[in-house]
Amino acid sequence: MSLNTFGHLFRVTTWGESHGPALGATVDGCPPGVAVDEAMLQHWLDLRKPGQNKYTTQRREADQVKILSGVYEGRTTGTPIQLMIENTDQRSKDYSEIAQKFRPGHADITYWQKYGIRDPRGGGRSSARETAARVAAGGVARAALDLLAPEVKITGYMVQMGRLKADRDRFDMGQIGQNPFWSPDASAAAIWAAHLDELRKSGNSVGAVVEVVASGVPAGLGAPIYGKLDTDLAAAMMSINAVKGVEIGEGMAAADLTGIENADEIFLGNDGRPRFSSNHAGGILGGISTGQDVVVRFAVKPTSSILTPRKTITIAGEETEIVTKGRHDPCVGIRAVPVGEAMMACVILDHLLLHRGQVGDAGGRIG
Amino acid sequence: MSLNTFGHLFRVTTWGESHGPALGATVDGCPPGVAVDEAMLQHWLDLRKPGQNKYTTQRREADQVKILSGVYEGRTTGTPIQLMIENTDQRSKDYSEIAQKFRPGHADITYWQKYGIRDPRGGGRSSARETAARVAAGGVARAALDLLAPEVKITGYMVQMGRLKADRDRFDMGQIGQNPFWSPDASAAAIWAAHLDELRKSGNSVGAVVEVVASGVPAGLGAPIYGKLDTDLAAAMMSINAVKGVEIGEGMAAADLTGIENADEIFLGNDGRPRFSSNHAGGILGGISTGQDVVVRFAVKPTSSILTPRKTITIAGEETEIVTKGRHDPCVGIRAVPVGEAMMACVILDHLLLHRGQVGDAGGRIG
Amino acid sequence: MSLNTFGHLFRVTTWGESHGPALGATVDGCPPGVAVDEAMLQHWLDLRKPGQNKYTTQRREADQVKILSGVYEGRTTGTPIQLMIENTDQRSKDYSEIAQKFRPGHADITYWQKYGIRDPRGGGRSSARETAARVAAGGVARAALDLLAPEVKITGYMVQMGRLKADRDRFDMGQIGQNPFWSPDASAAAIWAAHLDELRKSGNSVGAVVEVVASGVPAGLGAPIYGKLDTDLAAAMMSINAVKGVEIGEGMAAADLTGIENADEIFLGNDGRPRFSSNHAGGILGGISTGQDVVVRFAVKPTSSILTPRKTITIAGEETEIVTKGRHDPCVGIRAVPVGEAMMACVILDHLLLHRGQVGDAGGRIG
Amino acid sequence: MSLNTFGHLFRVTTWGESHGPALGATVDGCPPGVAVDEAMLQHWLDLRKPGQNKYTTQRREADQVKILSGVYEGRTTGTPIQLMIENTDQRSKDYSEIAQKFRPGHADITYWQKYGIRDPRGGGRSSARETAARVAAGGVARAALDLLAPEVKITGYMVQMGRLKADRDRFDMGQIGQNPFWSPDASAAAIWAAHLDELRKSGNSVGAVVEVVASGVPAGLGAPIYGKLDTDLAAAMMSINAVKGVEIGEGMAAADLTGIENADEIFLGNDGRPRFSSNHAGGILGGISTGQDVVVRFAVKPTSSILTPRKTITIAGEETEIVTKGRHDPCVGIRAVPVGEAMMACVILDHLLLHRGQVGDAGGRIG
Repeated sequence: MSLNTFGHLFRVTTWGESHGPALGATVDGCPPGVAVDEAMLQHWLDLRKPGQNKYTTQRREADQVKILSGVYEGRTTGTPIQLMIENTDQRSKDYSEIAQKFRPGHADITYWQKYGIRDPRGGGRSSARETAARVAAGGVARAALDLLAPEVKITGYMVQMGRLKADRDRFDMGQIGQNPFWSPDASAAAIWAAHLDELRKSGNSVGAVVEVVASGVPAGLGAPIYGKLDTDLAAAMMSINAVKGVEIGEGMAAADLTGIENADEIFLGNDGRPRFSSNHAGGILGGISTGQDVVVRFAVKPTSSILTPRKTITIAGEETEIVTKGRHDPCVGIRAVPVGEAMMACVILDHLLLHRGQVGDAGGRIG
Repeated sequence: MSLNTFGHLFRVTTWGESHGPALGATVDGCPPGVAVDEAMLQHWLDLRKPGQNKYTTQRREADQVKILSGVYEGRTTGTPIQLMIENTDQRSKDYSEIAQKFRPGHADITYWQKYGIRDPRGGGRSSARETAARVAAGGVARAALDLLAPEVKITGYMVQMGRLKADRDRFDMGQIGQNPFWSPDASAAAIWAAHLDELRKSGNSVGAVVEVVASGVPAGLGAPIYGKLDTDLAAAMMSINAVKGVEIGEGMAAADLTGIENADEIFLGNDGRPRFSSNHAGGILGGISTGQDVVVRFAVKPTSSILTPRKTITIAGEETEIVTKGRHDPCVGIRAVPVGEAMMACVILDHLLLHRGQVGDAGGRIG
Repeated sequence: MSLNTFGHLFRVTTWGESHGPALGATVDGCPPGVAVDEAMLQHWLDLRKPGQNKYTTQRREADQVKILSGVYEGRTTGTPIQLMIENTDQRSKDYSEIAQKFRPGHADITYWQKYGIRDPRGGGRSSARETAARVAAGGVARAALDLLAPEVKITGYMVQMGRLKADRDRFDMGQIGQNPFWSPDASAAAIWAAHLDELRKSGNSVGAVVEVVASGVPAGLGAPIYGKLDTDLAAAMMSINAVKGVEIGEGMAAADLTGIENADEIFLGNDGRPRFSSNHAGGILGGISTGQDVVVRFAVKPTSSILTPRKTITIAGEETEIVTKGRHDPCVGIRAVPVGEAMMACVILDHLLLHRGQVGDAGGRIG
Repeated sequence: MSLNTFGHLFRVTTWGESHGPALGATVDGCPPGVAVDEAMLQHWLDLRKPGQNKYTTQRREADQVKILSGVYEGRTTGTPIQLMIENTDQRSKDYSEIAQKFRPGHADITYWQKYGIRDPRGGGRSSARETAARVAAGGVARAALDLLAPEVKITGYMVQMGRLKADRDRFDMGQIGQNPFWSPDASAAAIWAAHLDELRKSGNSVGAVVEVVASGVPAGLGAPIYGKLDTDLAAAMMSINAVKGVEIGEGMAAADLTGIENADEIFLGNDGRPRFSSNHAGGILGGISTGQDVVVRFAVKPTSSILTPRKTITIAGEETEIVTKGRHDPCVGIRAVPVGEAMMACVILDHLLLHRGQVGDAGGRIG
């Protein structure tokens, strides 16, 4: 992982600013022969697309992806795949205030301190628009997984908005696509809707927790010690805008447990493979997948751009106040769901390729 | 980050198994002219060393570090620094049971599934002994920081054992070295001691939460988008054995907050630098340091090796039980404190070098 | 260096196929504040552009570069710079023969053997068109050097076509732009012109040797042992299509010399810096620049696509013959000159950044 | 490739100075299950060992390699392999002159200019002793190739000393081990012996050309565009001390040829695989192996440390003379032969793993 690239063998470099002519992802290392086309990638982008309901930014972006290279007659060739998304709705609004003042909680001040120059239009490179490129790249990763490990299924959903948690006893994965919050708990979705309406009207925003599960992941993926599967997942999720915490399996709550409680006891399944009594580990032991569901959660902080005035300073060093107008998500966690899925797909594929390269079929059998 | 190496310019590769002849760290990219000697590194290793009190494993390791290269007449030369720690207390115990059975919660089963071969002695490569090499490398990183950014101070401590949390109102950093738990809350330390005694006697273990703070970190460190400071910290901490969750600043609790609550408002400090009303961000915005304290927390799961029998299977595929004898930490989180500090030192130094290389002194001023 | 990316801190990833919609370069790690615009990059691209005289392919490509990201108001922001060149002259010719037969000396057969799929149109990814992206990226590197090390000057030229060598006694660098061969020896250029005319008419092609010199390179650049300046230059030049040999300073002829002959004796220059009696070393000792001219040469094999029938086989495994029609350079070495310059610029800049990051101003003084 | 590490998946980091306590290689990414032991590695080290005849340095080093990690019960485990060679013959000679004066042609001056500190004892990190670590790592690579691609055979030999070339018509590979020069041409070896005796007595040294051939390399290895097989070979060979030029196949002489001459025509072999009429390409087209012999040559400059006085300057900036006493190879190219073989083994293995990871068995068949 370095700079604007992530991945070891399946390497994704994203580029582009919120209000530049285009943004995209350079995907290098995709295996050859994978069926990929623009419609397939568009499917995933449409899920993330803003402006689809009142709970996400009203910016209207077509988010139409173009494949510029690496695919020939509908199949990947093993060469770099360039995915480009043109920006169409860059309103010619006045950025002079944002160019001079730093929005609290936003990267304005740190980009300035680091680089001495920044593109203030819509957050520039630090805008959540960058995640569109991740979703496009994730679409390629999913397509490759469909070919190489079709049993892998990746599902993301929201489990908490503000202090309001969904109830796992009510989880019905069929509900995820039925509400604007990707909630498997329909009741929670209804409550969140009311809560978010209120926050939005009062010029406020709120945080969220997203969970992403990958099932069907083969045992043995992960490259200890510093390319562990959980290490790379932690990095991948923490790299998403506004994420402040990442958990694998029990996550922070693992601290609460005793060794007796935490042990996922092992039995022999009917399929001759290990069967675990529980999954506190989140499908990863010693940085390597166990064959159970890989479970990752991450917390997304509340959107920093709010309509309520906050104290700040100017580049000139004067104290002042700022109110962030414009079209912002009141709960940026919502649109982080497809992004988390995309990152999961990229990491799983990357480790599948790494394992194939480093280990081949030398892995151990049980029984 | 890849395989057994972490870091971009300050690159640490650890090597070695728990019961092999030696383990260590190959440190590449340390700037020249840094004052480093074995005594200095030994200081940090001694803090982590096992067997110092009844709350850590009774394995007696001298953990004596030798510098084999890269240092000439007490100063680094810019060439790779090889740090070697010989294993002295490899008891010739019988590993035949562990070689056949997989300990629940342990990497035994995944190393087997991945590689088809594993060194069962003391956990082999997945043993927490690997972290001694990290602490040695972290000592080099600290020495380099002393030269290049002497204002940086790194402090780690335990904030939670099991469900028992330390009380921030009672924090006194002077207390950290005064109790076996690196606790800044002396009262909590006393309670933890009693709790851990009980758990240990009953053949159980417990999890913990460790917090590491770096103060004096210059604003501007971090390489967005995928080499963000928080991304690399998340990866660094998650790579430590038994860690299941990583938080920056508010961490998972960021989800609970509204945008109004979460905004760290900005004022102008007396020193002419930005002063923030709070530090929900943990010192990092958009992946770049703000100049505030960089605050990381991570959860360490309870030690998997416990004296209570647990159900498991053998390599041959038979269901059985296992009791893990041997000398194990009842709360492995305790010894993770110096490890977390070491990782923090490595990441901060690495980003200092990266920033110097990529940006030089082009960063922006305020006022 | 890996896959489609080269460079450590200044990282260039090229993408695109000869007859796809576009090709380009994703440039990551360029320092902020560098003055860059499309016209500046176009200048370098125009020098490499095909179809400018009868000695290069008659394909007519505008080779118009667009900057899609990373530049704001004419200056780089430190974020990835996406450079796109649309392909305009993809003649809808019939590729069915090339799709079935492998051209001897061409990558057709190896791409097929490796990937099991290939884009046969114009050589796909293995086409020399890929080098347009390098030239564009090299333009960014030059702009950054202009800011950070303005004394660096990079000059490439041809020193040999076929067996006909230019005469160093006649070198006049002012001649380089005055003939289609980038020759500093005007007489040689005239001879080459006649020779190439003849070869072209007879359906043949010819090899060449290109030399690239960087003057003004500060002493101290290069990261031993495996990121040496000469190591990276060798990799950079060998990565160019059709290159089969790379030399630094004396190059292969260094084998001919004795130690007495080869020693570049050292004196003290009037400027207080070391002055060398000669430059057999090509400006690099132990992988680190000496402050002398950095001198690299590389041999480009004759174009494989020729009008003379050659024996080959088909994908189906049948023996046959092939004549490569189409618009090909009779001496692809000519257009390799600006490409070699671009690679030199990228490597020098990369090592400047690396040195700044790893060493800062800790280097040694003399006197 | 970066700093002191080379390789993508099979990654070798060498460390250590000529006169430090030890030097070695950290080998990461070796597949599991490979039979490796110290005796096997020692075999290769003994071939490179100094002091075996009067044509190599009289320094007496046991060059005894120890495996400190990554091997369990004679097989690799997939974890990092630490190879250590202790320095035993560090004569306590006086280095004060070398510490003050820069030897022409040596890295003394550039290490000083770069780092501001250097270990003057025996050349420190820039000593050819570093190559012992490469040979040890190459031994591991060979062992892995024996398991994964047993048909690969790697053979290195000298083809030129000074201006005296071996005659390919007299090549008999059985002769290579029969003379101190690794020459397949026994007559040339006799002539070289006389020539070198004379040079040595007159306090002089001489350059050489080494050729390394890998046969049995499967078609399809190489990762275009910047991880091409030839790119990585060029970097690997250029990284060896004193190497000034690298050639693949025809090498620099490719410039002399016409396209008709250079075309390796393709036929169908009796084994159903492509058969080429010639191998101008050196077994690599478009950066990917063709299945033919992979042929690399490199030129080694004459040893810079000679007994004849040369002009130089001191650190203090005064002009002076230097005579390099001590035990030096009069033709360092001789001992570069096993080093070149080791680098070839590492690169071939690395690309075998890369190909397996990125492409698997998706490659194309012919016929």
